[in-house]
Amino acid sequence: MDVSGIYPALTTPFAADGTVSLADVKHNIQKYNSTGVAGYVALGSTGESVMLSRKEMDEILISVKGVAGKDKKLIAGTAAESTAETIERTKRAAEVGYHVALVKTPFYYKPVYNPDVYLKHYRAVADASPIPILIYVMPLFTGVILETSTIAAIAQHPNVIGIKDSGGDVRRIGEMRNETNSSFQILTGAAPVLFPCLSMGACGAIMALASALPEKCVELYKLFTQGQHEKARDLQLQLVTASKLMVSELGIAGVKYAMDQRGYHGGLPRLPLQPLQEEQKNSLTRLLATLEPVAARA
Amino acid sequence: MDVSGIYPALTTPFAADGTVSLADVKHNIQKYNSTGVAGYVALGSTGESVMLSRKEMDEILISVKGVAGKDKKLIAGTAAESTAETIERTKRAAEVGYHVALVKTPFYYKPVYNPDVYLKHYRAVADASPIPILIYVMPLFTGVILETSTIAAIAQHPNVIGIKDSGGDVRRIGEMRNETNSSFQILTGAAPVLFPCLSMGACGAIMALASALPEKCVELYKLFTQGQHEKARDLQLQLVTASKLMVSELGIAGVKYAMDQRGYHGGLPRLPLQPLQEEQKNSLTRLLATLEPVAARA
Amino acid sequence: MDVSGIYPALTTPFAADGTVSLADVKHNIQKYNSTGVAGYVALGSTGESVMLSRKEMDEILISVKGVAGKDKKLIAGTAAESTAETIERTKRAAEVGYHVALVKTPFYYKPVYNPDVYLKHYRAVADASPIPILIYVMPLFTGVILETSTIAAIAQHPNVIGIKDSGGDVRRIGEMRNETNSSFQILTGAAPVLFPCLSMGACGAIMALASALPEKCVELYKLFTQGQHEKARDLQLQLVTASKLMVSELGIAGVKYAMDQRGYHGGLPRLPLQPLQEEQKNSLTRLLATLEPVAARA
Amino acid sequence: MDVSGIYPALTTPFAADGTVSLADVKHNIQKYNSTGVAGYVALGSTGESVMLSRKEMDEILISVKGVAGKDKKLIAGTAAESTAETIERTKRAAEVGYHVALVKTPFYYKPVYNPDVYLKHYRAVADASPIPILIYVMPLFTGVILETSTIAAIAQHPNVIGIKDSGGDVRRIGEMRNETNSSFQILTGAAPVLFPCLSMGACGAIMALASALPEKCVELYKLFTQGQHEKARDLQLQLVTASKLMVSELGIAGVKYAMDQRGYHGGLPRLPLQPLQEEQKNSLTRLLATLEPVAARA
Repeated sequence: MDVSGIYPALTTPFAADGTVSLADVKHNIQKYNSTGVAGYVALGSTGESVMLSRKEMDEILISVKGVAGKDKKLIAGTAAESTAETIERTKRAAEVGYHVALVKTPFYYKPVYNPDVYLKHYRAVADASPIPILIYVMPLFTGVILETSTIAAIAQHPNVIGIKDSGGDVRRIGEMRNETNSSFQILTGAAPVLFPCLSMGACGAIMALASALPEKCVELYKLFTQGQHEKARDLQLQLVTASKLMVSELGIAGVKYAMDQRGYHGGLPRLPLQPLQEEQKNSLTRLLATLEPVAARA
Repeated sequence: MDVSGIYPALTTPFAADGTVSLADVKHNIQKYNSTGVAGYVALGSTGESVMLSRKEMDEILISVKGVAGKDKKLIAGTAAESTAETIERTKRAAEVGYHVALVKTPFYYKPVYNPDVYLKHYRAVADASPIPILIYVMPLFTGVILETSTIAAIAQHPNVIGIKDSGGDVRRIGEMRNETNSSFQILTGAAPVLFPCLSMGACGAIMALASALPEKCVELYKLFTQGQHEKARDLQLQLVTASKLMVSELGIAGVKYAMDQRGYHGGLPRLPLQPLQEEQKNSLTRLLATLEPVAARA
Repeated sequence: MDVSGIYPALTTPFAADGTVSLADVKHNIQKYNSTGVAGYVALGSTGESVMLSRKEMDEILISVKGVAGKDKKLIAGTAAESTAETIERTKRAAEVGYHVALVKTPFYYKPVYNPDVYLKHYRAVADASPIPILIYVMPLFTGVILETSTIAAIAQHPNVIGIKDSGGDVRRIGEMRNETNSSFQILTGAAPVLFPCLSMGACGAIMALASALPEKCVELYKLFTQGQHEKARDLQLQLVTASKLMVSELGIAGVKYAMDQRGYHGGLPRLPLQPLQEEQKNSLTRLLATLEPVAARA
Repeated sequence: MDVSGIYPALTTPFAADGTVSLADVKHNIQKYNSTGVAGYVALGSTGESVMLSRKEMDEILISVKGVAGKDKKLIAGTAAESTAETIERTKRAAEVGYHVALVKTPFYYKPVYNPDVYLKHYRAVADASPIPILIYVMPLFTGVILETSTIAAIAQHPNVIGIKDSGGDVRRIGEMRNETNSSFQILTGAAPVLFPCLSMGACGAIMALASALPEKCVELYKLFTQGQHEKARDLQLQLVTASKLMVSELGIAGVKYAMDQRGYHGGLPRLPLQPLQEEQKNSLTRLLATLEPVAARA
């Protein structure tokens, strides 16, 4: 299972009454189908999965699967805090037809979650999963950073095919490259360092930024694979600026607003996540204007 | 609604097949009923609520309510990451007969959760709640510390009656005492500083330690209210040692094992939380032996 | 050597040309002599010692010693980053007539300073020192927190008589009380928790706040030793407010400005520490006005 | 003043009696002169400058200057905690003949050092300095990270020519590249991400690793400038491993021991920095053996 390439971390669109809008889910996927992305990641952090019911999750998985291009890899976020529920969600994703499960570290009881706990958790999930799994490390939201040696130990399991590392510490890409087998696939979740991560041996990325700007992310990936390092760097610098405002400062509401500006159906996030204020909308609109030429070109 | 006094943060007992054992829930409550605790807190962090389904939560709420002594205050943890689900859970707790809702800070998207977001969230929940609410700050697990000024702003709402602060920073008790009305009730969640927190103006505590050692925690509270400060200090020093091993080092598995040793039904936590190893059990057993005389006296 | 009681962490007054004003040093000490403080701490963090030359340090030590009341304990900050220079400075302080050396943890190379490094460092200094030493832990400025077990190991040395802990974590006072001999003297450096620290077994304090408000700090200490816990609490709550503005927010410039308002010679700090702005001065003046009655009463 | 290229962060060799060995200083420089390094950085963090007296610093500056190849750029670490002493040291470095001053952020009183404080400090130093200055950010040792916007503001000063950023966060290289003029020179201090930093627009590096392995660091720099990205990545991965053990785990003692193994005079660090233990020496020797072929080739 090759998971290289660029994946949007899908947002979850909500209708005016606050329920999940499956029609908008499908609209977005159909539009993404022609952008060159390698596939889709449903129910990740950007998808507000921590705010969704199990029933909503299930409907989203089915909707995305239903309209995704046949060439697209389908990855489902399946982590729960307990091992048992993580397994249950993973099996369900497999049943719906997902190719890979993205399994975030448990994190709530982090003071007692030592490396051995993580190793046992991932082995149990990988043993039980009908589909291959990716480790998912998301320090900004979870407070958990797995040591490279822990990742390398988990990576020994034949059903663990790689990692999504959203920490953005490029040094760790190098450490993982050194301490895991070359078949272990490293995806970054950090748009501002996509190019450096690829340079160090990552094979792709799962990013919120790719939900709003899929063409630009795909273009950067292609420039890298074609060895056009200077152009890649120039585009990366644009994405540093875009990601800083849209993702780091404005968060999911920013990503969704940018999607709205570009023909996707982003909409509003669930509370307590707040809608953008006028001034924030204007900043984002100005930013998108500076990026259009490249996006149009792609 | 006076919430002063000592509350065990209830653990959730599981049967051999991993399901919630409501019989054990009831056993524990019946035994606690005669210990002098002021009431019960169901579905808190110690209750592994982040690992429970909504159905399990509901059954636990009903079971605790069913056997709790008539004089006991009933507090339900009702926080979810979304405002809407928090309100839904809070209303359900009120319906079941709980007196107070304990509302933990949303935390997953903490980089964009500024003070204003917290203010709006708590106001929305307090507006909608049929019962009074307590703010719940749990930095160790959530990574979120509310500024005292934010707490003071939330405390303006007439349906917000106080806070459970598990941060253990005694200075903040003083700041809250200075910056909120004297009717704002401060409960600490930090057993190692129970006595100093009471000295600074807290009116009680909700603690994992009180699930295994309710008599000692109640005794310390009484010594304080009786002005026996030296005895209170001596007992506090014992609880520093007990809490360090049982709660900080061994976590929920430690609390549950200690409960088992003392006639409660603790059992094992849900994975990935691990059962204690033999050596850990022995340390805990030795610790409990040193504490027995006082516990017996209480 | 009994170091119980309240000690001002002395500031260093500078003349208009930026040099140390020894005349002002002496003025301040003479004024403090009648306030009930137990002694003086020269060359601590509040004394801007990291900005002083060795020659300036020496002159300050001599000046303070020259005018200190005969009943006052004299404590000198003698830490340098290297063990050898720390010993050299400690010997010099002894030679000048200081009773105790306050030895801050080395901290610059903290990633490789493990507990064993600290144990060896303190043993070497304690072995070489003609006078007893106090460990000094200052997490806010150094980033270093010694584990209680490390402190307990260092405390085995007969020439180590105690600790100044500026971390403000009251739980640690309890842990130290449990894990060290009763002769080990614990001084807090955290004014907002002076009363709780005393309640848990500290025997005094070395505080920046006591440089501007020595009478109030001494009064709180006396209220505690007289068992007047409610009055102590009320005064502590005032000091929480005072310390938050004067020390935490405004820093050394705030302490010095407050000293100026109260008849001491504070003056300006060395750059890059900035003088207060008008608005800050006004806030501080208003705060001092609310405190005057108590200070006058003391 | 072009400061591109690779600079060893010079270590300070001590004689058996603990004094600085100027003979060994000179030996090392003479050996480095033929390695392709762009110049030398004296009195940085790796040089144990926080453990040196002003006199020792002066002798080292003079010794390095005396034997450095005529083509080498000379950079002196001149930061002190106070602005005035920083200026004094900077002027002295210029007088001795150094081309550039490396000015670390003041950090001790970090709670009150806001962006404006840093801006004023750097402007004052840059105004007074006869030679151009580099900002130096060293989060691991100082706890201070300057915001990119603060760096950009400081960079407006005509006498500030760039920055040494030891934080290792590659995203920040991109941000600085976006927010400063193209003439602003960015040097990294983080060997594990040298290649990615160069890819993002850094122009060189000042590194402890280059004190022990100058040829390999220079080789990586050359591979990058020649556009040989795959070879650069492979060599970078070797340096990730080398830096992790030698610099991150073993610190200055590790760098010095590796120098000893490679014909330089490293020696022992000053206490409390500890000498390596046998097992650590063996690990390092094994590591160096795996690197020799490349080092020899260079």
